[in-house]
Amino acid sequence: MGETMRQWQMSGIGRDKLRLNAVPVPEPRAGEVLVKVGAASLNYRDKLVVETGMGLPIAFPFTPASDLAGTVAATGAGAKRFANGDRVISNFIPDWIDGRRPGSGRVPHYQTLGGFYPGVLAEYVAFPEDWLVRAPASLDDAEAATLPIAALTAWSALIDLGALRAGETVVVQGTGGVALFGLQLAKLHGAEVIVTSSSDEKLARAKQLGAEHGINYRREDWVERVHQLTQDRGADHVLEIVGGSHLARALAAVAVQGRISLIGVLEGFELSGPVAPLLLKSPVIQGISVGHRRGLEDLNRAVDRTGLKPVIGARFSLDTVPEAFDALDRGPFGKIVVEIG
Amino acid sequence: MGETMRQWQMSGIGRDKLRLNAVPVPEPRAGEVLVKVGAASLNYRDKLVVETGMGLPIAFPFTPASDLAGTVAATGAGAKRFANGDRVISNFIPDWIDGRRPGSGRVPHYQTLGGFYPGVLAEYVAFPEDWLVRAPASLDDAEAATLPIAALTAWSALIDLGALRAGETVVVQGTGGVALFGLQLAKLHGAEVIVTSSSDEKLARAKQLGAEHGINYRREDWVERVHQLTQDRGADHVLEIVGGSHLARALAAVAVQGRISLIGVLEGFELSGPVAPLLLKSPVIQGISVGHRRGLEDLNRAVDRTGLKPVIGARFSLDTVPEAFDALDRGPFGKIVVEIG
Amino acid sequence: MGETMRQWQMSGIGRDKLRLNAVPVPEPRAGEVLVKVGAASLNYRDKLVVETGMGLPIAFPFTPASDLAGTVAATGAGAKRFANGDRVISNFIPDWIDGRRPGSGRVPHYQTLGGFYPGVLAEYVAFPEDWLVRAPASLDDAEAATLPIAALTAWSALIDLGALRAGETVVVQGTGGVALFGLQLAKLHGAEVIVTSSSDEKLARAKQLGAEHGINYRREDWVERVHQLTQDRGADHVLEIVGGSHLARALAAVAVQGRISLIGVLEGFELSGPVAPLLLKSPVIQGISVGHRRGLEDLNRAVDRTGLKPVIGARFSLDTVPEAFDALDRGPFGKIVVEIG
Amino acid sequence: MGETMRQWQMSGIGRDKLRLNAVPVPEPRAGEVLVKVGAASLNYRDKLVVETGMGLPIAFPFTPASDLAGTVAATGAGAKRFANGDRVISNFIPDWIDGRRPGSGRVPHYQTLGGFYPGVLAEYVAFPEDWLVRAPASLDDAEAATLPIAALTAWSALIDLGALRAGETVVVQGTGGVALFGLQLAKLHGAEVIVTSSSDEKLARAKQLGAEHGINYRREDWVERVHQLTQDRGADHVLEIVGGSHLARALAAVAVQGRISLIGVLEGFELSGPVAPLLLKSPVIQGISVGHRRGLEDLNRAVDRTGLKPVIGARFSLDTVPEAFDALDRGPFGKIVVEIG
Repeated sequence: MGETMRQWQMSGIGRDKLRLNAVPVPEPRAGEVLVKVGAASLNYRDKLVVETGMGLPIAFPFTPASDLAGTVAATGAGAKRFANGDRVISNFIPDWIDGRRPGSGRVPHYQTLGGFYPGVLAEYVAFPEDWLVRAPASLDDAEAATLPIAALTAWSALIDLGALRAGETVVVQGTGGVALFGLQLAKLHGAEVIVTSSSDEKLARAKQLGAEHGINYRREDWVERVHQLTQDRGADHVLEIVGGSHLARALAAVAVQGRISLIGVLEGFELSGPVAPLLLKSPVIQGISVGHRRGLEDLNRAVDRTGLKPVIGARFSLDTVPEAFDALDRGPFGKIVVEIG
Repeated sequence: MGETMRQWQMSGIGRDKLRLNAVPVPEPRAGEVLVKVGAASLNYRDKLVVETGMGLPIAFPFTPASDLAGTVAATGAGAKRFANGDRVISNFIPDWIDGRRPGSGRVPHYQTLGGFYPGVLAEYVAFPEDWLVRAPASLDDAEAATLPIAALTAWSALIDLGALRAGETVVVQGTGGVALFGLQLAKLHGAEVIVTSSSDEKLARAKQLGAEHGINYRREDWVERVHQLTQDRGADHVLEIVGGSHLARALAAVAVQGRISLIGVLEGFELSGPVAPLLLKSPVIQGISVGHRRGLEDLNRAVDRTGLKPVIGARFSLDTVPEAFDALDRGPFGKIVVEIG
Repeated sequence: MGETMRQWQMSGIGRDKLRLNAVPVPEPRAGEVLVKVGAASLNYRDKLVVETGMGLPIAFPFTPASDLAGTVAATGAGAKRFANGDRVISNFIPDWIDGRRPGSGRVPHYQTLGGFYPGVLAEYVAFPEDWLVRAPASLDDAEAATLPIAALTAWSALIDLGALRAGETVVVQGTGGVALFGLQLAKLHGAEVIVTSSSDEKLARAKQLGAEHGINYRREDWVERVHQLTQDRGADHVLEIVGGSHLARALAAVAVQGRISLIGVLEGFELSGPVAPLLLKSPVIQGISVGHRRGLEDLNRAVDRTGLKPVIGARFSLDTVPEAFDALDRGPFGKIVVEIG
Repeated sequence: MGETMRQWQMSGIGRDKLRLNAVPVPEPRAGEVLVKVGAASLNYRDKLVVETGMGLPIAFPFTPASDLAGTVAATGAGAKRFANGDRVISNFIPDWIDGRRPGSGRVPHYQTLGGFYPGVLAEYVAFPEDWLVRAPASLDDAEAATLPIAALTAWSALIDLGALRAGETVVVQGTGGVALFGLQLAKLHGAEVIVTSSSDEKLARAKQLGAEHGINYRREDWVERVHQLTQDRGADHVLEIVGGSHLARALAAVAVQGRISLIGVLEGFELSGPVAPLLLKSPVIQGISVGHRRGLEDLNRAVDRTGLKPVIGARFSLDTVPEAFDALDRGPFGKIVVEIG
């Protein structure tokens, strides 16, 4: 291991403040492990952190991004969960191990990697061992780095909280990272998947991944189509990624006692919708913000046993992180990965 | 039993179309029982039916109201769930026995008594035996008649779906029928109850019923007060009765992984609220529209075993139903009951 | 439809008392439908009814067996769930629609088809419409007739109550009807399946159906092997079909907070096992006796959407029902079907 | 704080090997807190550890017992959950924070205080801060020390896993620590409680605590009596403390889809019972071994909000721990407490 390494650092808010600098390789302290980063993946939220700071208490220089896969290169005093050579991935909300999420009703908890805690766009990171879990053996680093936010969000929504079962219908909005993992996890559990998109080409690719139906919402009323496809039953699960007033559409599409997992905010931070379907169909609406470490371990086991392969939309190198953010702006089909190690 | 009886009939939409007529006592057909009505209770929804029709397929003359308690006076061929003399109460959504509610995602189910099905403001009704359950032995007819909508709604929200437990905090908005049953059921389960109201006098009465705290939302920021009272934990359960944009307040007040049961529509039929607390606290929002027959039976058992006494705000006779609706307009403390038999 | 039909009738207890008689085709009464039976499947329990009566209140002549698939041929007055030509299957516990099972703690409910209620080994049956559900469109009658007991039992255990998810490990004992449906349903949900059997040939066939692992319990300690295969995690779900003292093995094999679904009684009607793993691993042990009608409808939807094909071990005609019981005695791989219509 | 303190130490297996020695007050290491012990409570399991070692990897000298209440007297480097003067109680299974219990299917987890980890019968203990939770403000140390095993076990069984609700019936066997907490927690949630005992005097005391019914099982068939008292419904929850073949009685008494929480082993370590009620009533049987830290925090909140007061059967001083064990042998009504600080 070298004495210095490359690390992306924000000197302030704004994409133009992001620089690839040479810094010392960190030493793992007590309870920490040093991870040689093999790959990172970018999420929409990383873009918000870089461009707006999201109101987070960021101390510059700050390294963004949260999702890594890599290999343990050294262990600090007392660290015993991993040994050198173990392959690991990061847990986005490091303090949330299982069960109840930290935080209070007054002050919601948002202490995450690449936000409150430092991020991963570097050749090495030294993290407390509790922040990491073993990587799925069946995935390489580029693939494994896609899991911490996008796959765990879909897992929490559909499987851990949603208890999805075969024969149910899942509506997935769009073809971003969470949406495609939602599609793949739903198929793994025998569900029927309906994808909505404005792009016929993306719908065709979603069908290749196993979606039974694609609806181009520019040409069709997707809610009406969902009712037709389900013989009026409606969608047992909706991954609501658009948000805002689009919640009204999800409420129209959802089945009796179905579930709307609110995940995204593309249409804004203010939700709205009619109360009548909420009363008469009694669906659950639940916001999903990633998940806990035990869920990530369960997900990894599912990946290894089923052979699920994440969809990578584009790959970049550590040198070309700005281009990776540009690709994120364009709305990729699948995940944006930065190959590092 | 006499040959004729008195029955309230709507000849059309509007309170002025409601008349107390003399009609023949019905004969119970196969599978039906004849119930001598002891008492009925009125709900806000009965007012909407009488004044607006609520878009329901009503054939005039139509008898409104859904909640009755009475005594089985005769049984039709094949009816075997009840015998003459059994005391019964009605099930608001008669086709919903247990588990999944009828209806589809496209066409929500709203086939209820005093709406799609005929109502109960009469001296006798002849109903299919499946529409009824045994009344709690510990309540008289006036008390028992308050349960079918208001108490079952609170039971479904807090207990059947909410799995409320001792030590949790429940926020109850106002002092109407559902709110007071919510208060009482929460106390039965060892929870801490916070009531919000604009009336100090009603708050004082709510405290007499067991509420630990009353917040006059005209004078105080109730969300801030909830955080203070719970040491920032927030409310584990919110009975959201105001609705509309008030959902934003419930989202601010709710605890991490808490539950907002949307029940009322006082502020309108369009919900709205910010997405951030929904994502970061991951509460469940669920609309509650009364409940199933098995829930009503469970509730009745709880009433009998604990001695819970419904709060009756005002009593009227069958002759004075118009005055009972006037009392409903004024926002009573507890339930409005029409004593009949 | 002819005037007479063939129907198997028990004139008393014992296989020798079973006769194929000519009887009038029944007329559907009010609320009933006449079903032209296409196929029936036999269950181990039918054998017990014929050979021992199982202590049931059987009035002779009595027609055994519960599982049918067929076509509605006529409808009685007021019957409206089905129309002529609709394909249907039977619900084994006809009074259990959803939610809580009928019966009391003192007198468990066992009012089933081909036991308390009449059975289906006939060319026609006239049943209350509530006893039937629509058959899966993707299955023919022979296939569909296998579902009511065996498939619904596995569905209730693993999916409806078990909330099985991808990556979990399921141990299935043997290769009978419930076991193979358990295997297939577990695979549909992305689980890893381990089958135990004393027959290498049956294990090989189970692997062809998708089981990852087969353990010949005559040659290997299956519990030890389960721990090896799961890296000590143990089995998240055990379909305990052997019963008796074999429960001790399930308790040794099960994962922390896993689930043992007790289904069978091959080793006798007295369960036993050590308490230590029950305390320290805190698994759920739950007896499963088929399931409710809503579960059967959910299962049928899963069958249609995933293309699951039941495994038929042998086919017989209505003339050769005694030979079908002989085949049941030999422990078939999959279900025994009687093709009728 | 003095330089030396008194601490009970086992020099080997057997009650005669237990000595009260003078040892140095420990120094809290990094992440630890020093607790001045105010009180400890004894559990049946402490007796087994002292008398048999229970097969645990005990290094002598060893301090037994797990349940303490006390006050933080000093904090080690980096410890930040508590400050000096905070009142705390211990968590029996220190590594189990929330959600899934540690351990594997092959090697169940039993790393507890006063067993695998050191115990609490001393004037001071230095423990990792994660092993402790804040004590309920409404209890003194003697009362608070009763909670970690007995109350949390009853809470896990009836409330956290059992979701007990008003109107349900709970059967509690005996009047030991778990049984009485079960009684009190059930009453807090509006349930009906039936206590079984061989002592009329203890039954009378149980009724004073709120039990509706006491059954002297020497004089009456308690199962028959439960059916009578519940109008045949049976017991929704059974706290099965006797164990062994007594499980058969619990299976006879339990309601349809009820819950048997297996907690004790008085009749031996081999369970047995008939399979028929398990199949036809489909109850859940689940072994309960205390619970997680989050459950203990929820319990403490419930205690503070409801004013629940633990039942202390007898009090001893640190000098008289042998007499406290003698009292445990005699089967006290409530908890045995050692007052220390």
